[in-house]
Amino acid sequence: MELDSEWVVGFTDGEGCFYVGIYSHPEMGTGYQVLPELTIVQHKRDIKVLHALKRFFRCGVIRRNREDRYCLRIRKLECLDRVVGFFDKHPLKTQKNIEFKRFAKVVRMMKEGRHLDIDGLLEIVEIASKMNRANSNALKDIKKILESRMKI
Amino acid sequence: MELDSEWVVGFTDGEGCFYVGIYSHPEMGTGYQVLPELTIVQHKRDIKVLHALKRFFRCGVIRRNREDRYCLRIRKLECLDRVVGFFDKHPLKTQKNIEFKRFAKVVRMMKEGRHLDIDGLLEIVEIASKMNRANSNALKDIKKILESRMKI
Repeated sequence: MELDSEWVVGFTDGEGCFYVGIYSHPEMGTGYQVLPELTIVQHKRDIKVLHALKRFFRCGVIRRNREDRYCLRIRKLECLDRVVGFFDKHPLKTQKNIEFKRFAKVVRMMKEGRHLDIDGLLEIVEIASKMNRANSNALKDIKKILESRMKI
Repeated sequence: MELDSEWVVGFTDGEGCFYVGIYSHPEMGTGYQVLPELTIVQHKRDIKVLHALKRFFRCGVIRRNREDRYCLRIRKLECLDRVVGFFDKHPLKTQKNIEFKRFAKVVRMMKEGRHLDIDGLLEIVEIASKMNRANSNALKDIKKILESRMKI
């Protein structure tokens, strides 16, 4: 199955999810790990489309999500850099483009290593808390902890 | 907002729903009305995309669906004929293409007036009962009624 770029944009406008996860991770200098991801979930009858998207972006992992649903998840920073380049060139048409721009900013900050210091991480937490699937309570807590550390 | 054909295909693969409704209608000779429709539902934040799709297909009605969601519904036979022509030329990539092919067959039969006699209507009921959102119990009842009428 060959995919056209504009088809990929339309399908992502419908089915894609840009998300920035921030997780406690004691081994990181900041205590937190930043995990941006693009996910696309489909019923198993359309797993071929997920494989075609994986080939299109030349990255991603396909796993069973729950019951009859499968998920393509793209997490590797070098892959996300390619994904961001693609959607910069071929903009999403829905309001998902706002999510994408926040996501893209986080990916760019990570490429510069900004997530590795408290300052940059705080900025990322701020961006992530504006995003759709954000767990705003958890992010507020993380923000408080990081801010208290900056005061020391 | 200008839409590219392949974007429309990708977005419909994600968000479109092809459906054939069959409703009791005493004024019709067969007693039933066949209503095929393509619907696309979006959150109100993306109502602009629904308007762009309406312009793209040069038809359809946009109404509030429920709560914050709006629906573009294309029902007019001459419009559906154009929609079918479009997706014949630009095939859907997901298994929704199977739904589309059933839908297209019903639209073509209606163009020939086949839904106006019991024979054709029975064939349409058969096709509709294979489709995703089908209320198979209701369609079984309709089938029984039509079959009993054929025996008279």
